[in-house]
Order: sequence, then C-alpha cells, then structure tokens
Amino acid sequence: MKVICARCGKERESMEVRCKRCGGPFKVDLEDLPLSKNMRENFPYLEKWISLGEWNTPLIMEGKIMYKLDFLNPTGSYKDRGSVTLISYLKQKGITSISEDSSGNAGASIAAYGSAAGMSVKIFVPSSARGAKLRQIEAYGSKVIKVDGSREDVSRAAESSGSYYASHVLQPFFRDGIRSLAYELARQAQKIDEVFIPTSAGTLLLGLFEGFRHLTSQGIIRDIPKLIAVQTEQVMPVCSKLNGVQYSPPEKVTSLADALVSTNPFLLKEMIDILKKYGECVVVNEDEILSSWRELARKGLYVEYSSATTLAALKKQGSEGFSVLLLTGSGLKIG
Amino acid sequence: MKVICARCGKERESMEVRCKRCGGPFKVDLEDLPLSKNMRENFPYLEKWISLGEWNTPLIMEGKIMYKLDFLNPTGSYKDRGSVTLISYLKQKGITSISEDSSGNAGASIAAYGSAAGMSVKIFVPSSARGAKLRQIEAYGSKVIKVDGSREDVSRAAESSGSYYASHVLQPFFRDGIRSLAYELARQAQKIDEVFIPTSAGTLLLGLFEGFRHLTSQGIIRDIPKLIAVQTEQVMPVCSKLNGVQYSPPEKVTSLADALVSTNPFLLKEMIDILKKYGECVVVNEDEILSSWRELARKGLYVEYSSATTLAALKKQGSEGFSVLLLTGSGLKIG
Repeated sequence: MKVICARCGKERESMEVRCKRCGGPFKVDLEDLPLSKNMRENFPYLEKWISLGEWNTPLIMEGKIMYKLDFLNPTGSYKDRGSVTLISYLKQKGITSISEDSSGNAGASIAAYGSAAGMSVKIFVPSSARGAKLRQIEAYGSKVIKVDGSREDVSRAAESSGSYYASHVLQPFFRDGIRSLAYELARQAQKIDEVFIPTSAGTLLLGLFEGFRHLTSQGIIRDIPKLIAVQTEQVMPVCSKLNGVQYSPPEKVTSLADALVSTNPFLLKEMIDILKKYGECVVVNEDEILSSWRELARKGLYVEYSSATTLAALKKQGSEGFSVLLLTGSGLKIG
Repeated sequence: MKVICARCGKERESMEVRCKRCGGPFKVDLEDLPLSKNMRENFPYLEKWISLGEWNTPLIMEGKIMYKLDFLNPTGSYKDRGSVTLISYLKQKGITSISEDSSGNAGASIAAYGSAAGMSVKIFVPSSARGAKLRQIEAYGSKVIKVDGSREDVSRAAESSGSYYASHVLQPFFRDGIRSLAYELARQAQKIDEVFIPTSAGTLLLGLFEGFRHLTSQGIIRDIPKLIAVQTEQVMPVCSKLNGVQYSPPEKVTSLADALVSTNPFLLKEMIDILKKYGECVVVNEDEILSSWRELARKGLYVEYSSATTLAALKKQGSEGFSVLLLTGSGLKIG
C-alpha cells in the first residue's frame, strides 16, 4: 500500500499535504490489498484505532429504495468514517496539534476524534458560522477561530495556522476511511443499481468509489453501481462541468443544504473523471429539497437538508432498479 | 407469553392502559421464552416490524469503563428501543391514531415511529417546551399540543385526548422493547459488574432488568449486574424512597438534566422492589453533572446532560470492577 499523488503519481515523501511536484491531492493506492471480512483489516496501515463507535450504520428498505442512515455515526454525520482513519493515523505519526477548516460536519467530526486522541484541535470557521454545529465543535473542547472573508480565506488560515493541517479534503487517510461505506453497503444490500450521493468537496464520492472499485477488483461485486452525484442550484460546479451547463455561484450561498457549499472544489478533476465513466450529476432546487426533507421526516427519518437532496434527485430522475440514498447528516444539527 | 398487571397479576383483557382491577401498570410476562440469538425472535408477539434502524448501538471501552452509545438510536435516544416494539404492536392491533405526553426524547421517538407506521400522532407537551426536541417532534409531522399546568396535567390531557394513549410509561410493549439493551450488553461486553442508569419514569431501569433476568433464567449470564439508578438533587424520588432520605421537589425543575423530570413516577414501587434486591440509587448535583458532561465531550462523546449523570455517579461512587455507563440521549438535542 502506497500513498501517491492522484494527478502525477509521485509518491508522498512524508506528511506533506499536497504533492511537492504538481500540487495535486494524495490518495491511498490499495494495489492488490486482499479484501477482509474484518472491516479494520482493510485499513492495514492502522495499528491502533481511536474509535468512537463509527461505521456499521443501519440500512433500511422501502420497496426498491434503501436508506443508509449514515447520520447515526457518533458525531451525527458520515464524516466520522474518515475522521477515524485520519486521526488514528496522525496519532500514530506522533502529531499532537491539528487544524481543520469547516463550519459544519467535518469540523465537528475532526474535533471529536482529535479530542479523543488527546490532540489540541483548532477549527477555523467562517465568521458567519453559528448554531448547533458550532456548539457541538466547541463542546468537544476545540478552539474555534472565526475568519472573515471567503471560504477560501478560511482554508488558508487553517493551512497556515502552525498546527498540522488535518484537512478532510486534502488528507488521503480521511478519504480512505470512506471506503468502509462501500463494504457495508455490499454486505447489507442484496442488489444495488445506483447510489445517490450529496456532493460538495468530493470526499464522499471519491471514497465510496474507491471502496466499490476494491470490491469489484476482488470479485465481490461484478459492477460498480451507478454513482449519482447530487448538487443544488446554488452550488453545482460538478454538474456544471460534467453536463456542460453554464453556472456561476451566488455571492452568498443561502441554500437550505448548508453542508453543500464547495463552489470551487479542489477535487473537481477527480470527481469528473469518475462520473464520466460511472455516473452522472443531478441538480435539485430549494423547493424540491424542502419537500423531500418533509417526506423523509414523515417516514421517521430526521436528516439535515443536505441529505434530503438525495430523495429530491431520485424523484426528479426516476429510479432505475434498486437505489441507495445516502443520508449523511442528522436533522438534530438544524438550528 | 402473557400481559399481566405488575401489581395484582390480573391478565390484560384487551388494550386497556391500566389494570381494571387495581389500576396498576401492565407488564409482559416472558414465562419460559427461550432466548434466541436472533434479537427479534425474543419479541415473538410481533409479526411485522416498523423499524427505523434502532438497536445495535456501539459499546466503547476505556479501561474498565464501558460507554453504551444509546444516543445513536435513530431519533437520538434510547427510547427508540421501546417505540419500535410498542408502535409495531399497536399497528398490528389496527390502531391508527395515538397520543403521548412528553416534551422530550419519548415524544420525539413515538412521533417518529408513529409517523413511520402511518398513524396520526398527537404529542402533548408542557407549555414551556421549546428547542431542538420540540422542533424534532414537529418535523416528524406530529400534532404538538401545549398544555398549561403541571406535568400531571399534561399526562391527563394526553390520556383523555380521544386517541389511543400510547404512553411510554404505561404501555407494557414500550418497556418490553428495552430488554434488547440487556441482550446487546451481554453480547458486547466480556464482563459487567455494574450498570449506571439515568432514572426518571423508570422504563429504562425496568426494561433493562427484565432483559437481564431473562438472560440469567436462560443461563447466559450468572448474575444480574448491580443496577445503579442515578438521579439529580432536584428530582430524586427513587433515591429518597430507597435510601430513606427526606426530599421535596422544587416547584419548577431547572436541572441541566432535563430528561430526568419525573418527580412522582407511577412506576416507583416497581423500581424500589428491584433496587432493594439488585442495586442502589445515587444522587448527583448540578456541578457534578456539568463537569462530567464536559469530560465526556472531551472524549468525543457529545451527550445530553441527563446522560452525563452516569459518569458523575461513577466518579462520586467509585467503581467496582467493570462498569457500563448508559449514554441515553444525544448532545445534539441541547438547545
């Protein structure tokens, strides 16, 4: 198992965050890692796990629609799948002080696992951030630093903070933990034709893809299910690029789907490469999000609005066979 | 399997909420039900499950302390363990319209499962209720009815609403679902000497006890672990009665532990009978709750204050061997 640049293939030298040759993002190259039924053995680079009870979330079925309740991870979002592998790895490497930028689920997740690992954690957030997610980040004992300016300004502040930059977007061992989701789905579902994926920075799409690719390479599933990226009208860089549609983001994103805010994702090229071959991208609007959110809640599934984009996309698109909707964040984070 | 009055033993005739002879609460009498590894087979009265992915929550270990993350049930609290069995049973009986009284976790849980079952749900709450839990109840599509007066006034309004009274306190098939927790603990833990139980109306303590009793009667565990009920200085009727300590509740309960509000629990006698034989009762104060809550959050465990009473009690009491702390409600419900 090697860590290589996803763009130029250069191997990672040490703990650098971006490729020293081309500036690209690193990824974990599984090579011919055999698949194990013991989930943790599929992450052989970890010797000791900083676990909070993540993974193994329920999948419930209604006709041909399957709901993956990933908001039942310990901090209330799917991000814990990646935080457990990243933070465990960083701990192993002796890192004691980290920074991250996020006002939402990733910040809360990194804060929780960082604290659990005994690290000092700084979370950089937009100065407008407030509400349940911010209270949660603070509760874990992280230092919250508010930054004026654009989302990029917040990232720059986190990257240059002096602590090790534990970016959920850039760190390969974050994205790699998301593979666990593919293994669970393959175990829980009899058949999956398509997966609806709320898409912002790209960690969910890319991590899930690597898991499915691993499953096919080991002969556990025959084909990678169709990967349907879902974005909002306000933030649709992936759909815009993939479908060749004109689009410019609003100055201020006001969508209900406040976890889907990456107007200019660093991993855009990687997402497009996968979707061209294995998927598509669907855009949903605010009315569609709200009515799908209501519909989910009335089924007893209380999720954040960003997760409801999946049902909105399914209803818009029509279903082809057996569909998985990834419900990524808890409704308890609203407000 | 029969349903009998816990006080006079009279069998339940139909769907009445209290014993027609003595007014006592009903309980499910397991008789000699064989224990099955298939969890659902231990609830043989259910033919079809209205499931939202409840049960099978993580247990994580730190030295001799085990944290049971029951706040990772689908609505964010352990109540889902009982809602799934109660609502599935009521659905089977053809009931389509229910009422419940609670401003908190039980209300949210009954609301979610009731909606999932296609029932019309009315949740009666104190007129002072607000915040995350109330928003959650409303999101599930339940009708929320605010009632002025005491907590007892709210209960009376719910019981006389004209809908079937799906009380989490009185309904035996709610309490019975909590048995699942004992089975999980027995499977997940190597050894359990004591369990710390946030205690209010008594459903958690009584349901857990029935599960442990079943496990001993079937020879799966030798002894019932020591059951340590935990209450707050403001609301301690169980500790008061058990320990013979003077106590009168404040006119208005203001404790941080806002899920522990039963000043005059209907199931008091049943709790005392169990604790006399198998346990004890510990009182914690507000400072102890707050500092234990902070300590849990800094371990990455973001729970509601009521759940932090367990750690507060453990610290006060000292530990005897292997201890389980039941973390019953999500920190995302705060505020």
